[in-house]
Amino acid sequence: MTAEVNSWAFSDTDRAAVYRAIQTRRDVRSHFRPAALPDEVLFRILAAAHHAPSVGFSQPWDFIVVADAVVRQAVKVSFDRENARAAENYEGERHELYQSLKLEGILASAVNVCVTCDRARGGPHVLGRNTVLDADLFSTCLAVQNLWLAARAEGVGVGWVSILAPNDLARLLGLPDHVVPVAYLCLGYVTDFAPTPDLERAGWGERIAVDTLVHRDRWGHPYKHSDDTAAQPLPESPEPPC
Amino acid sequence: MTAEVNSWAFSDTDRAAVYRAIQTRRDVRSHFRPAALPDEVLFRILAAAHHAPSVGFSQPWDFIVVADAVVRQAVKVSFDRENARAAENYEGERHELYQSLKLEGILASAVNVCVTCDRARGGPHVLGRNTVLDADLFSTCLAVQNLWLAARAEGVGVGWVSILAPNDLARLLGLPDHVVPVAYLCLGYVTDFAPTPDLERAGWGERIAVDTLVHRDRWGHPYKHSDDTAAQPLPESPEPPC
Repeated sequence: MTAEVNSWAFSDTDRAAVYRAIQTRRDVRSHFRPAALPDEVLFRILAAAHHAPSVGFSQPWDFIVVADAVVRQAVKVSFDRENARAAENYEGERHELYQSLKLEGILASAVNVCVTCDRARGGPHVLGRNTVLDADLFSTCLAVQNLWLAARAEGVGVGWVSILAPNDLARLLGLPDHVVPVAYLCLGYVTDFAPTPDLERAGWGERIAVDTLVHRDRWGHPYKHSDDTAAQPLPESPEPPC
Repeated sequence: MTAEVNSWAFSDTDRAAVYRAIQTRRDVRSHFRPAALPDEVLFRILAAAHHAPSVGFSQPWDFIVVADAVVRQAVKVSFDRENARAAENYEGERHELYQSLKLEGILASAVNVCVTCDRARGGPHVLGRNTVLDADLFSTCLAVQNLWLAARAEGVGVGWVSILAPNDLARLLGLPDHVVPVAYLCLGYVTDFAPTPDLERAGWGERIAVDTLVHRDRWGHPYKHSDDTAAQPLPESPEPPC
């Protein structure tokens, strides 16, 4: 690898900043501060989402910024109902652990953002959306991750509330028939970005070793590489919160 | 906004690096260099993907690194067939423009990576995957975007080839029944990250003004904000490629 070949790489410090956003991003539920999110910051984050790749450059997303307390309360009611239903999937200690988990910040966060997908945008023949019709939903998820990482860099926490009925969201937000909710996000400044995911610290699940997830050429053939490669952590700038 | 409230924000330069990755990331098809991708770089990028959020911390993704020429040639055959079929969706000038577009870098890139989703991972009751069963596919897309941005910071181009039949990929890569391909990506060093998306430069589509995509509280109510907010571009560090 010569420097010439890799002339488009970021500087070490800039690269480390990108990895730090990726590594220290959290799904935030319980550390929101009440402080408002300035429009200036919100729009930087939404513009970052809008710069995601999309199938056929269709940009199928919209962003519904939900500040209204009545709408949020109604969304919370939907969450409570679906969450009670979901809790019944677990028994014994697992049920108790589930009940103890904080899984949303709908009312505690500064603002909610519903990221939707307009399934009609770009017309009937979106370039590249022919073999996989859900490619527009996938594009919308790429926008969500841009949003999440930009927010992290801004010091803004994001939590995805997935325990919601899409029909409830569509009704509460007045979505047209051709528009579906993909992600319901809670955004706000935080008291903490936890060092590890909440569900890992709570003992609900463990981080899988990435090595076991990498195959060579075909499924089930482990990708063998030097031990040095396996051992290295993500590059991370050591800068503490200032 | 006091500094105290926003104590988790990145420094201005680190924040700009994150925005630069987001803004200068491209869907690369025609600018790949033949140079190999070192394992060290590849695994940093895959580790970044693995640090994406996932529903119930299920981490449903796997990464099949396809270097083998026979597999790649077979994937290219699938692309050629599906692309010919897709071209029939367009007529006249639009058809000619479609035919002129370069939509894949399967053989020209250093390596291909198929990102899959194991729909059985985490068992029958993944936390948060109750109202939307495709939440595992959505998580896998978040991992793809992490991969894409990490690659940009490394100076590595990524192109998502969506014009492929999932059944072909599943067969060629030997996927078990419970594992589906989500993204087929081409990775490699590049001669160029184009200043704008290929499809925009080719006149296939235009960037939508983000303002028109932001609603307040309910669909169809424009989010009004100060003109200053609307006008500001993403913060970007001016550092040229070194």
